[in-house]
Amino acid sequence: MDAAAAGSETGTTLSRAADTTLTEQLSSRFAERIRQRLIAPGTRLPSVRDCARRHRVSPYTVVAAYDQLLALGLVDARKQRGFYVRELADDAPASRSAGRPDAAGPRHPLPISATSLIRGMFQPPGARPMPALGTLPAEWLDPPLLAGALRKVSSGAQLGPLSLQYGDPAGELRLRRALALKLADFGVSAAPEQIVTAVGATHALDIVTRTLLRAGDSVLVDEPGWSVEYARLAALGLRVLPVPRGEDGPDLAAMERLIAAQKPHARPRVYVTVSVLHNPTGASLSLQSAHRVLKLAQAHDLHIVEDDTYAHLAPAHLPRLSALDALERTIYISGFSKILVPNWRVGFLAAPPALIDRFVDSKLLSTLTTPGLTEQALAHCLEQGLLRRHTERVMAKLEAARSRTVKLAESHGCRFAAPPRGLFGWVDVGVDTERLALDLLDDWFIAPGALFHATPRPTTLMRINFATSQDARFWRALERARDALGARGAGKAAASR
Amino acid sequence: MDAAAAGSETGTTLSRAADTTLTEQLSSRFAERIRQRLIAPGTRLPSVRDCARRHRVSPYTVVAAYDQLLALGLVDARKQRGFYVRELADDAPASRSAGRPDAAGPRHPLPISATSLIRGMFQPPGARPMPALGTLPAEWLDPPLLAGALRKVSSGAQLGPLSLQYGDPAGELRLRRALALKLADFGVSAAPEQIVTAVGATHALDIVTRTLLRAGDSVLVDEPGWSVEYARLAALGLRVLPVPRGEDGPDLAAMERLIAAQKPHARPRVYVTVSVLHNPTGASLSLQSAHRVLKLAQAHDLHIVEDDTYAHLAPAHLPRLSALDALERTIYISGFSKILVPNWRVGFLAAPPALIDRFVDSKLLSTLTTPGLTEQALAHCLEQGLLRRHTERVMAKLEAARSRTVKLAESHGCRFAAPPRGLFGWVDVGVDTERLALDLLDDWFIAPGALFHATPRPTTLMRINFATSQDARFWRALERARDALGARGAGKAAASR
Repeated sequence: MDAAAAGSETGTTLSRAADTTLTEQLSSRFAERIRQRLIAPGTRLPSVRDCARRHRVSPYTVVAAYDQLLALGLVDARKQRGFYVRELADDAPASRSAGRPDAAGPRHPLPISATSLIRGMFQPPGARPMPALGTLPAEWLDPPLLAGALRKVSSGAQLGPLSLQYGDPAGELRLRRALALKLADFGVSAAPEQIVTAVGATHALDIVTRTLLRAGDSVLVDEPGWSVEYARLAALGLRVLPVPRGEDGPDLAAMERLIAAQKPHARPRVYVTVSVLHNPTGASLSLQSAHRVLKLAQAHDLHIVEDDTYAHLAPAHLPRLSALDALERTIYISGFSKILVPNWRVGFLAAPPALIDRFVDSKLLSTLTTPGLTEQALAHCLEQGLLRRHTERVMAKLEAARSRTVKLAESHGCRFAAPPRGLFGWVDVGVDTERLALDLLDDWFIAPGALFHATPRPTTLMRINFATSQDARFWRALERARDALGARGAGKAAASR
Repeated sequence: MDAAAAGSETGTTLSRAADTTLTEQLSSRFAERIRQRLIAPGTRLPSVRDCARRHRVSPYTVVAAYDQLLALGLVDARKQRGFYVRELADDAPASRSAGRPDAAGPRHPLPISATSLIRGMFQPPGARPMPALGTLPAEWLDPPLLAGALRKVSSGAQLGPLSLQYGDPAGELRLRRALALKLADFGVSAAPEQIVTAVGATHALDIVTRTLLRAGDSVLVDEPGWSVEYARLAALGLRVLPVPRGEDGPDLAAMERLIAAQKPHARPRVYVTVSVLHNPTGASLSLQSAHRVLKLAQAHDLHIVEDDTYAHLAPAHLPRLSALDALERTIYISGFSKILVPNWRVGFLAAPPALIDRFVDSKLLSTLTTPGLTEQALAHCLEQGLLRRHTERVMAKLEAARSRTVKLAESHGCRFAAPPRGLFGWVDVGVDTERLALDLLDDWFIAPGALFHATPRPTTLMRINFATSQDARFWRALERARDALGARGAGKAAASR
């Protein structure tokens, strides 16, 4: 989608003057969104009456549009229940697997919802900021800082060594040295030799899980949590065991029960968690809870994968498991997408020395090496204190945005399910947020709470980005849509009595 | 390893004036190489007598050095058979898997030899070119061209959109458009929407295999072939079925037999192959063979993954399976590491439209997106004809290098097992090349043929890089080492008679 298309498309109503009929306009709008997966497979389309009212067209137009979607194979009609977005068909060779016995245990389909979420979270260039956005808004970042760093490492004789050879499989030594110093700020002591760079924190997580686990293994993960992580683990054929995540840390009793419920050979070997500014709740692990998590990990011989993606947006003193444990059974993962530059895709892991060679091997097998150019540019930002000063500016801005957004949310009848901190708020809206997301889709992308569960379930929670939810129009639209949904819900409840 | 260390270390003899004893120097030299995996686990160290002669020290010094390696846990002593490099021990939690029943079928250990190979193939900056190198030598590439392209896309207003947002999950549209045009040169017609960018061709291969296959599945792969590919497939828990690769293409009768030998539910679904300038033999698929491969793929409902990494070093008219098949069941993969710039890590796949969404999902789950900066810089190189002109210069140079190298090889008693073409030569040396590699290690890295087999086996073949094997000293050293090995072998054979 280019900028012009995104801008002109958002928030427009159907046009009576257009070359195409209203039916065609409506059906192609739905078709586009289904194809882009902004509406996930399995989602029920709005009822004919609701859709007609919303788009100010006749019910006949809506029925005709839905019929076109049916003819295109994009939706299914279920008797008395309406139209549902169709699951994607497998291609021919892959679909054969449906009919054959499965040696690797139950099939773990890729939860389409998760990739819908990330796709929805990508802000098209030029579009206005959306509450579902997963990063800082582009306007908060600092292109001159980045351009300067890039110039430093790509001018003259510098460029050759960073481009003409594959580079060090562990990643640029200069960056690993700068990271070792940076990690000390968080109390994590790691030598440069204990650090491996990656194509963003996502790649670091991928390297670690595919090294430590294999298809059929089980893995403990916080819930709610980041959908993409659930999806990745499921796609690797792993069994995801969700651990309820509370304000101070994971529910350890529940974790014990989950472990005990597995057969001895199927016990989990890894726990993946976000200690600081947990996504989506914003909660951080308490010191006491951290200690107990490590004791439990020791008792059950678990590796802990600590995803510290939001490290830079939190006070440095918050406890990290990797700091307490001194990287004995913890693997620390972070990156720079949430603070400095999402698309340079620079992330890293820090790990016990005994695991490093295995992680480097997995990195070699997945991407061979990583680009030295952006790694050195990032090292420059760290060495020169540019990241630190940038972070201070962002933190001040984020604080102001958070307090404005919290006021707006509360004044429109929303409640924070966890104390607002960091980049994301975890908000209770009072109606099913998946329905709400669909109703708002023409104007606003929101991130419904169902997408933060290992097994999607209806919920009245949603995640907002404090930086991109400061527009009063969003909260007004949300209140209207919520009230309309509530009224419809109440009406249906009354009708079915 | 930094340049100075690499330079001073290569080819030096032990020093009697040094602070450390000869024993310590010898043991630490072996230790370093074992730790760097330049000597693979399972390799036998040279006999005490050979090693003593080679390093001009007493047998007593060698025995003491080997004992130190034993104490360090780096080697095992086997009675009457010598010292062997030890297999790496798993860390504690992972090693538990050894004792438990395995639902996913037999354990597929990561062939350490493959990662040893890639590690050995990395040319440390400043070191002299090595025959094992997997890319063009750095001196053949064009830093001003690259710097110019980078400047074009990172100056002023350009940088922001390429850095501040995650970017299009499928990759920069501008690059995908340029690639669509470029692919037409090879007869492959793909719309930009059929193309997904990746972190090098390796990542594209990883995306495709982890999408189409899952642990326990079997997969057909050319043999000999690229070790990293075998290692990656094995690490994903796949069963590798090697298909003998001949001068015109794969042995189709053997492929048929391999397929028929599997139980119906365990039949392979994917065939991974290099059609043009096959690594390591340099052979290219004939048109007739291409047609027959496609018929066979149709009959057995196989996807074909066509790795065209060496595309730019071959005449454009050579037949590609993806061209014949019009990307119906073929997936085309290539990149720019072997022609323009290894460390920017830009590769891509082109695939049937029905598969694209699934590949984009796998890309999202493995690295989220890819860096837009280098993708746009590459698009600039394609659009402006810079890649084409650079390729012409490289081809002329490579032709000269090849003819010089072939002469040198033949004059030192080596024979080409396949007609010399492209970047790599497949050379028969007449003695076991793994032993030869070990004996040459102080001065030259070679790529023994065993590393190009799915199951390593002794072979007298090795792969050379035509561009980096033009040094007459290499061929003299090889001839000496070969004759010494041959004499020892003959001696042993005589002794055992």
